[in-house]
Amino acid sequence: MAHISVQEGLPGIRSLVMFRPETGQHLYALAQVLLRGESPLSEAERELIAAYVSSRNECMFCMSSHAAAARYLFKDKKQVVDIVLDNYQSAPISAKLKALLNIAGKVQQNGKAVLPEDVEQGRNNGANDRDIHDTVLIAATFSMFNRYVDGLASLTPTHPKEYEVMGERMGTIGYALPVKI
Amino acid sequence: MAHISVQEGLPGIRSLVMFRPETGQHLYALAQVLLRGESPLSEAERELIAAYVSSRNECMFCMSSHAAAARYLFKDKKQVVDIVLDNYQSAPISAKLKALLNIAGKVQQNGKAVLPEDVEQGRNNGANDRDIHDTVLIAATFSMFNRYVDGLASLTPTHPKEYEVMGERMGTIGYALPVKI
Repeated sequence: MAHISVQEGLPGIRSLVMFRPETGQHLYALAQVLLRGESPLSEAERELIAAYVSSRNECMFCMSSHAAAARYLFKDKKQVVDIVLDNYQSAPISAKLKALLNIAGKVQQNGKAVLPEDVEQGRNNGANDRDIHDTVLIAATFSMFNRYVDGLASLTPTHPKEYEVMGERMGTIGYALPVKI
Repeated sequence: MAHISVQEGLPGIRSLVMFRPETGQHLYALAQVLLRGESPLSEAERELIAAYVSSRNECMFCMSSHAAAARYLFKDKKQVVDIVLDNYQSAPISAKLKALLNIAGKVQQNGKAVLPEDVEQGRNNGANDRDIHDTVLIAATFSMFNRYVDGLASLTPTHPKEYEVMGERMGTIGYALPVKI
């Protein structure tokens, strides 16, 4: 049960933004621009970074839902998602994306863990300022979402089918506040 | 020097929201509602929680600027800020605020570290759902800001006077995006 009185049956962050839509609207708007707005990174890659950071924070709700969104967006290459979550170094992804996942993992620990050589490794593999910026902000943002969702013990569905449905919704509709304020 | 090309001389998050105002606008809007909007916690208490979490994350820029804002807002009780940052258990603050700082510290570690007994301790000292919600979201949000600011190695001013000026601006004007988009 959640630590505060939220609407029963609503999973994860959905129950929290319904509890306090005044803050929720900005959380969803941020997710929409960051994960669906213009970026040198594809939507699938950005969802993958979100799932990877959530996995490192052991946030089951965010990890499962964003992994499902990434699988939906990677289409016939969707098997890449689970390989990355298991060990991204062995995944069939670009050296640039591996370098960005390394940076995201550093941000998950602490911002200061990102060293000039981590950024250099990204640039040597084709990452530009926007790739690096978006990676750091996605990793920072999910360090927030993960803590919001777990810090209030919001509902974490356990059935994979529920996440599959969520992933398809996130991959098509994106992030729209489920309530008018 | 920052890891990406941002406008020289702009400190901390200010340089990053100028680099990418499309995401920056939602970060500032979130800070404004969360730290200045309606809440059972005073603006001073919310800035104190923000400074405390930033201190635990060793983010000098966020810690120094939000501590300065808290000092400005606490007025003639401003000495409380430095006592809290040193050891909040010894500070002349309410048992409720101590219980909320305990929760904020748990969120800073990991959302799952918040246990039912931490929440119970808050409730026994007068915290309601909104106190607990706002505390968790402030702690989660600063776990993001701290990582964004340090993960991109943005400029951290070293002179206390600069933070004093920032703190007064944050305590009066609040959080308004410094650029039109």
